[in-house]
Order: sequence, then structure tokens, then C-alpha cells
Amino acid sequence: MSKNILNTINSPSDLRRLPKEKLPELAAELRKFIIDIVATKEGHLGASLGVVELTIALHYAFNTPDDLLVWDVGHQAYGHKILTGRRDVFHTNRQLNGLSGFPNRSESPYDTFGVGHSSTSISAALGMALASNLKGDLQKQHIAVIGDASIASGMAFEGLNHAGVTNANLLVVLNDNAIGIDPSIGALKQYLTKARVGYKPAQDNIIEALNFKYFGPVDGHDIESLLKIFEDLKKISGPKFLHVITTKGKGLKKAEENQVKYHAPGKFVADTGELLPYNTDGLPLKYQDVFGLTLLELAEKNEKIIGITPAMPTGSSLNYMMDAFPERAFDVGIAEQHAVTLAAGMATQGFTVFCAIYSTFLQRAYDQVIHDVALQNLPVIFCLDRAGLVGEDGATHHGVFDIAYLRCIPNLMIAAPADEVELRNLLYTAQLDLKSPLVIRYPRGRGVKLNWKQEFKKVEFGKGSLLKSGSKLAVISIGSIAENVRLAIEMLPEADQVAHYDAKFVKPLDEKLLHEIFKKYDKIITIEDGVISGGFGSAVLEFVSKHQYHPEIKCLGIPDNFIEQGIVYQLQEIAKIDVHSIYLCISNLLE
Amino acid sequence: MSKNILNTINSPSDLRRLPKEKLPELAAELRKFIIDIVATKEGHLGASLGVVELTIALHYAFNTPDDLLVWDVGHQAYGHKILTGRRDVFHTNRQLNGLSGFPNRSESPYDTFGVGHSSTSISAALGMALASNLKGDLQKQHIAVIGDASIASGMAFEGLNHAGVTNANLLVVLNDNAIGIDPSIGALKQYLTKARVGYKPAQDNIIEALNFKYFGPVDGHDIESLLKIFEDLKKISGPKFLHVITTKGKGLKKAEENQVKYHAPGKFVADTGELLPYNTDGLPLKYQDVFGLTLLELAEKNEKIIGITPAMPTGSSLNYMMDAFPERAFDVGIAEQHAVTLAAGMATQGFTVFCAIYSTFLQRAYDQVIHDVALQNLPVIFCLDRAGLVGEDGATHHGVFDIAYLRCIPNLMIAAPADEVELRNLLYTAQLDLKSPLVIRYPRGRGVKLNWKQEFKKVEFGKGSLLKSGSKLAVISIGSIAENVRLAIEMLPEADQVAHYDAKFVKPLDEKLLHEIFKKYDKIITIEDGVISGGFGSAVLEFVSKHQYHPEIKCLGIPDNFIEQGIVYQLQEIAKIDVHSIYLCISNLLE
Repeated sequence: MSKNILNTINSPSDLRRLPKEKLPELAAELRKFIIDIVATKEGHLGASLGVVELTIALHYAFNTPDDLLVWDVGHQAYGHKILTGRRDVFHTNRQLNGLSGFPNRSESPYDTFGVGHSSTSISAALGMALASNLKGDLQKQHIAVIGDASIASGMAFEGLNHAGVTNANLLVVLNDNAIGIDPSIGALKQYLTKARVGYKPAQDNIIEALNFKYFGPVDGHDIESLLKIFEDLKKISGPKFLHVITTKGKGLKKAEENQVKYHAPGKFVADTGELLPYNTDGLPLKYQDVFGLTLLELAEKNEKIIGITPAMPTGSSLNYMMDAFPERAFDVGIAEQHAVTLAAGMATQGFTVFCAIYSTFLQRAYDQVIHDVALQNLPVIFCLDRAGLVGEDGATHHGVFDIAYLRCIPNLMIAAPADEVELRNLLYTAQLDLKSPLVIRYPRGRGVKLNWKQEFKKVEFGKGSLLKSGSKLAVISIGSIAENVRLAIEMLPEADQVAHYDAKFVKPLDEKLLHEIFKKYDKIITIEDGVISGGFGSAVLEFVSKHQYHPEIKCLGIPDNFIEQGIVYQLQEIAKIDVHSIYLCISNLLE
Repeated sequence: MSKNILNTINSPSDLRRLPKEKLPELAAELRKFIIDIVATKEGHLGASLGVVELTIALHYAFNTPDDLLVWDVGHQAYGHKILTGRRDVFHTNRQLNGLSGFPNRSESPYDTFGVGHSSTSISAALGMALASNLKGDLQKQHIAVIGDASIASGMAFEGLNHAGVTNANLLVVLNDNAIGIDPSIGALKQYLTKARVGYKPAQDNIIEALNFKYFGPVDGHDIESLLKIFEDLKKISGPKFLHVITTKGKGLKKAEENQVKYHAPGKFVADTGELLPYNTDGLPLKYQDVFGLTLLELAEKNEKIIGITPAMPTGSSLNYMMDAFPERAFDVGIAEQHAVTLAAGMATQGFTVFCAIYSTFLQRAYDQVIHDVALQNLPVIFCLDRAGLVGEDGATHHGVFDIAYLRCIPNLMIAAPADEVELRNLLYTAQLDLKSPLVIRYPRGRGVKLNWKQEFKKVEFGKGSLLKSGSKLAVISIGSIAENVRLAIEMLPEADQVAHYDAKFVKPLDEKLLHEIFKKYDKIITIEDGVISGGFGSAVLEFVSKHQYHPEIKCLGIPDNFIEQGIVYQLQEIAKIDVHSIYLCISNLLE
């Protein structure tokens, strides 16, 4: 198929000059364009395929960028990016210095609000709409496009609840495909499921109860119907809600059939959707799978173990336990606040709850960690996947703040395993007889050991270890960045002068070990895959100040700015925590 | 009225031995008891008066503490405390080493879940109920009592949404009095308002849409009706919802008439409810009023200013602006996440948004500060009231983590004025031409200056100042704790040896000033009204390490444990940031 039409669309103004009859053809071209690029460059697939027609209809019917369009989460916005002047650079999607995988205000005036985390669009669009009211602009349209998984999050409810008592010119478009990354869950989803194109359940319409005018459901792949209803909706003031039913992965048969797998499938054959074989022989397992498989192993023997994930069963690998013990493993949907307090409630009844949350998403439940778990000293175990730099998902998703925001919380222990075996032993120890809450943070991606499944050993909480001795300088690393340190030291001619310690715990610090280190060395490097401000290095500095050591200390970590997308090693270079930068830092300090 | 019955109730078992006919008399005694003590000891009043009958009925009908009762927020739980063995110590409520003003697991087995922040009860009780299911205990009852303001928060929705797809033996009791601390807002509230005792709106029942069996509304002051329906509900499995209508302040006429004022009225005449005069002549204004009045003053001239509060118009004093400019000042209800992202949306449209949130409640919107505001570098101004130790509200409410959890966020500036004049000038400067987000943190309570309303002066961001020079040692304080430092230095015989600097900004740090200080002094004390771990002192340590100074530094602040309730100066003593402790610390370091 050619791209005869798509190649003429350099902005939505071009789009709006097309006759309506041409739009289905454009949709086919746009869909093909997305498939062709994602097939080779990787990225999110299913969500964008599902909204091809909706994207065209929105930009055709509304006067973007004057009318303000906010995409929730934003991994479905590839078509939006391609139609708004970014077609020719779209192949740089999710690469360093390329396009962000999500809408981003610094990238285009059509990206009205930066997204990445879910359920923000209603609040943001309502803010814009109320601002327009204050400016006296009652014509401007404000549209939030939100999926059925995202709208079930508490934050979206807060936005709807407020919008319903305003006269804001807000249109909420529900993109209902019955799936987030994994299938949607919850009572609201069950309720939505009753609706079909052309059939609206008569009773108990939550949306109408919240004072929204409800329209639809309409077929989200029928551009003509969409355009007709958008024209009607433009004439109606106040908060409006349009229920659109779409199919995730639409137009690529395999993606429609396996929506979880094709959310972000990796490389595939564009024509057939067939996944390209990816040889993992000889590669260590992913940390998430070590977590998921180890938890399953432990849960088989310990019936007090419960697992909770907010909407990431596949991503966190809790799905192993969910399959084996569905009654003890809970996907609560995009509801991090609820997930944490639910865990606290279960812990009060004597259960050992593993709450698996990406580091970046625990930011959504910060108060619950403090107020419901730590303050009551409930022994909940937080398994923070995707801690540190996560790569292509970029600034919205890096899990780099966790050490800083967690270590100020009393009662909470924070561990960061240097490899998969440590992770496994931490999980094992956590379910033995935990007395306080524990955070275990580990990175996205693969580990470093092939023989991860070793016999369990009990970990002593708050105890670090010496990995390599040395005569002149000590490097103290926390977590999996230990591997970069190991490689850097190996490269050094003066390797014998450099000791390497694995702190293992941010909290409690191994004060005995630190005393040993600071008595022996006056040149120290701390390193972490997290922000320097308030991070692990900062904890070491507090120890040093308290005990009046006066060494030369260099703290390595993520600097005080947001890090964009790229391959993890590229981003480590930017943050100067890659092997070479560590090598240079040690060399300089040795001089 | 005597306390003939109440004096015989040392636990709910005693209560359950009473004949039903005696319960209204007990209710009258309990109400009187609460009024008498709160009249002289202060505390929350209206909420507990509103649930006297409900409290009695719950403990009478259910087999507490085996049946698990969770109070949301918990300032309504005075009756519960008095009936569960704490009658004779209730006069120590909210005092140091006395009873907590909120349910607290360490205080009583009847306090099944510690509360203080709102909207956690459904998640917690659901966790308990699912735990009972796993234990095979299908008889145990799990009850969450939640107000109509709290249930409109996103977190409560998340809990309902999950509960609705479980078979958990959960009863949610909605205590609907149409008011939180200020009147409830939002579409859900409007919806609930349609319901009356004996009349349930037929259409669009949100609760039923979420798969709950809905009962009521019933009169929450009619014990007999309550008991009858509780007996019925016990026999029904799965998630159930009972809508109870109550009057906040019930039984004290003035409290019923002025529910906002009598939420926590201070001292009053027990018989009449008349507030005792409280002479404020000669006292400085409260920080919150300096904020509220200054914002109003600025908003009168700058029509781009918008104010937002999540459910604290009175507590934050945003009500001055709400009265004068209702279209530009928004109470969004208990919805911190929404409040922050709404502010971000407005800021994208060129408005200057002041988001007034208590420090402890900003924990509820941490991700939104990072992801929606700071990452996009939107110039939202966060006015963090109740920063530092707040006193009688205790561990759940101290605003001591903010410096630590905020200073790791790129782009964000953090200021802490030493007095009201600095606060005023910060507010003035913030609305001139702000380019980045700004946090201004200030304490609960009164300031230190009578002449607060001085002419506005522009503040230079990131600039500290010398308050007092000295020859040997420097104290660097951040925020209003400066006053304690001033008094401590005044007491010192060696006052002339001690310099005092006001950092004013946690971020950006005044590096020029810090270089001056560290070049001149090798004995330094940092002090803050916040946690030491990762706090302001820690930022100074990072500076010191980076620039290779080697002074003796002592970091004062809140230690790494939760601080209970008490008068602020008592709590400062515990944290060793009171005047005397500072005096001792300086003296020791001078030796």
C-alpha cells in the first residue's frame, strides 16, 4: 500500500482539507505506517492501532492545536504524532534525542500535556477548560481521551467528580477496549462491559450520576459516526462524555488476538505480525522473572504469602503466582493507593504481603506507604521493579527517586540487591518472620547470573559486604550498579588499590561496615542508580558527618535534572554512572 | 445528667449486655461526656457528636473486636474510644503520652487500623475481609465507616471498585452529613444529596453500579433502626453499602448551626456551646492567615492568580480569596492528586496557580508534583501549610517529610520563610514572573511579627542571608525554626561567637553564601523543622562533600522515628530542636 495521502499530511490543517471520503484510506495508510515502523524499531503497538480512526476523527473535527487535546498515558498517541508534523522523524521514536514515546510539551504544540503515567488527562483538561472559562473563551474545546483501565483509577474519578459540578467545556472520550496493558479489572469495568455499540445500559449510569451528559457507545473504527457525533458534541456546553468502543491492535490480526503480547511486542514481521525470534539462550533471566518465579516457589510452601499488583501482572511477573494461586494474588487495576493500603489491611491479619509496584508508580502511593504501612510498622514487602534508569520509556518512567523519597520514612527498611541471587534471598528472608516494612528495589531488564536459582540463604537485614579488597580507595555501591563498578575496577591498572563494597541496604545502613571502611580509607566513592540529592550517597554523608570522619567522598548517581529516553547504557553515560565514567572517577581520585 | 450507664461500660461486652431500651439514654450520656471533655480539653467535636448513636449501634450489633471496625479519618471516633475501655483516660486525648486523637493500633485492639488521613478505610477493611476469606472465616464482619467527603476521594473509589468484584464480607457505612471539615463538594455529593431517609433515588446509583448491595438511607440518630438494619446486613454476604444520614454536631445546638466552626472549636461552655473568648490582642497572625490575606491582596491586582485547595478552605485560609473571587478559587474536595494536576493544566494556559495543601497531604499527590508539574517545569506554586511538627494531631499529621521528599525533584524550587514577612514577599515574588515550580513551606500556628503587612519586596530565589554575625561557629537554619535559634543564641554567654544564617531556600541552595560560610567557619550547625534523613542538612552535606570542605557539622532536625502528639514545644524537646537543646548543642560545639 502506498502512502499517497499520508505523505501529504504535515499537520492537522492538511488533514482537514481532505474530503471525508478519503479518511478511511488515510486510516489504512496510517495504520500501515505505524506497523512498519514499530515492527523494526519496537515500541507500543496495540494501543495506537486501536485509535487510528479516533485520532483522525479528533484532529479532523476539532481545531487542534487551538482546541486542546490531552491523551491519557500517551502510548496510544503514535498516530497523533505522525499526523501532527512528526511523520518523518517518527522512526526515532523512543531513541536518545529522538521522539519521546509519549506526548511531550517540549516536542510539539499539539502535545498539550506531557503524559506517561495514567489517569491524569481529565484533571489536566479540566484545568485547561476552567482556564478558558476565566479567559472568557467559551468556544474552545478541551478533550481528554482516556482508556477504560485508566478511568478506573482514583485520580480520574476525582477529575470527573470535580468536572461534574463545573460548566467547563470538557469532553471526556472513553476509549473502551476492555484492556490496559493487561485486561482491565474492577466493578466499573464490569459495568462498562454491559454497554455495546448502540446499547447503553439504562440503569445506574455512573457517568450520568456524576452530572456528565453521556453519549454513545459508538464504534471507534467508524470515522463517519465519530465525525457526526463530534460535530454534535461541539454544540453542547458543559462536561460531556463519549463512550467509544475500539479493538486494541485493530488491523493486525495477531495483535487483535493476543492483546497483552502485542501491547509492546518487540520486533515482528510487519505483514503478518509474526514475532521475530529473539534468542535468549545464554542470557540471564530478567529480574522481574526472578521475582515472579521465586515468589511462586515461596508461595507454594508458605500459604500466608499474598501477592498484589496494580495493573502490572505481566510486567511485574506476578502472573506466575496469579496463575497458580489466583485466590492469593490480586491485580487491583491502576490503583496504587488502594494496592498499598489493601496490603496493609491484609498484613494486620497476619498475612505476608508482597506488593509488586514499579518504582515510578510507587510515587502514586507515597502517602499510603508512610501513613498506612510505615507508621503502623506493618511488615508489608514492596517489590520495586524498574528501579533506576529504565531506558526507552524515558523521563516519566525512570525509577530514580525511590531511594531519596523512601529513606526519610521511619521503620522502613530498604534493600537493593546487587544481583538476582541477592534478590532471591531477600524474597526468601522477607517471608520468614518480618517485623517491619521492607522495600526491595531492582532494575528493569536482565540480571547478571545464569545460575540464579541457588539454594535459599537467609539475609541479615542491614548488612553489607566486601566484594573486593583494595589498598587505597573504596567504592561503595548499592544495588545492581555493582556490576558497572566491577567492570570499571577490572579495567584499572591500579585495580589492586581499589576496594569494592556492596552496601545491600540503604536502610538500615551497615554502620559497622561503614566504620571499618572510613577507618581504613580516606578516599571513597558512593554510587547508585538513583538521584544524588537525598539518595544513598547522602545517607553515607550523614553517617560520616555524625561520626566526624573527614574523608574525600565523591557521590555518583543521577544528577539533578530529568533524564530523557534512550538505551540504558546511553543514559548511564549521561548520568556518568557507566563503566567508563566510573573508571575515570576512580582514576582521578587515585591520582 | 448522670453517667449512670456510661460508667458501667468498660468494653463493648458491657454494652451488649444492656437492654436495647437503655441505649438512647446511654447515647445522651456519651454525648454529654464528649461535650464536657472537649469543652475544656479541646479537640474535634462535631464529627463525634454526629456518630454517637451509630457508634453505639455498631458495637452493639457487631462482635467487636473480633468483627473488625475501621473508622475513616478517625476524628469521629471519640465515642468509640470511650466505649472501648478508654473512658477514664479520655481526658488525656491529644496530649503528650495521652490518647491519640485518632484510632491507633498500638492503643487498643478495637482500633483495627490507624487513621488520620482520609479515605483509607475501604481499602484497609477490604484487605482484612479478603484475609478472612483466605482463612476460611466467612462469619467475621468487616465494617468501614466513611464520611461523604472522604468517599469522594479517588482512593475510596479505588477501594469500592475493587471490592465490587470480590465476595468479601465488607460493609461500607456511609456517614452522610454533607460536610467534611468544610462542606463537601463535587458531583458525587450532589448526587448523594438527592437521597433522603426513606428515599433512594431510583436512577443512576453509583454504588449499585459498582456491584454493592445498597441499603438506606436510614436515620443515623435512630438507634433502633440502625440495629434492625445491621442485624439484616449481617446475614447478607458480599460487599454491602449502608447509607446513613446524620447531623454533624448533633445534640449541641450551636455545633449543629455552625458545623465548620465546631469541627474543632477550641474551648467552649459545655452547656451552651458558647465559645470561650480567646484574647488574641498582641499576638501575631497565624501563618495561614498571612497566606490567605496576602493571596487575596495579590489576587485583587493580578487577575491571572488562581487558588486551589483540596478540602481545606478554612484551614488554609484560602476562604478569603474564595469569598472575594469565587470564580478563581477552587475547593476540589479531598482530591490532592486532582488538585495538583488541575493546577498544572491551568498553568499550561498561562495562569499563576497557588495550590494550598498541608505538607502532610501533599504526600497524597507526590507523583503529580513530579510527573505533571516538575517534569514539565510548570510554574505552579505549592503553599505547604502545617509544615514541620503540628502538635496535637500527632504522627499522622506532622509535615516533617516534605523537604526530604521534595528536594530530590529536579526543576522544583523550595523556600521556607523564617517569618511572615518573608512568606508574604515570597508570595508576592512568586506571582511576578515565575519560570519553574515553587514550594513555600510554613508552619502551623502563629508567626512572630506583629507588623506583618509590610510593603512587598521582591525576593531573589536561592538567596539566603546573614541574620547575626559571629566569630567561631555558624548556625544555618531553614524556615521558622530560626526563631528558636535566635532565642538560643541570645541566652548564650558566648553569643558573639555564634553567627546565624537564614538559608531561606532548600533548593536552589545559596552556594555563594555557603562558600562564604565554609571558608570562614569549621564548626557548623544546620537546623530544620523536618526529618534529618535526606533533609536540608543533608543537602548542605552534599555541598560540603562536593566542594571538599572538611568542617565539623552537626545536623539538627527530626530524628528517624515517628513523633506522637503533644504541644509543639514538647515535641521540639523530643526532637531536640527546642531552644534549650539548640543552646546546649551550640555550647558543646563551642567547647
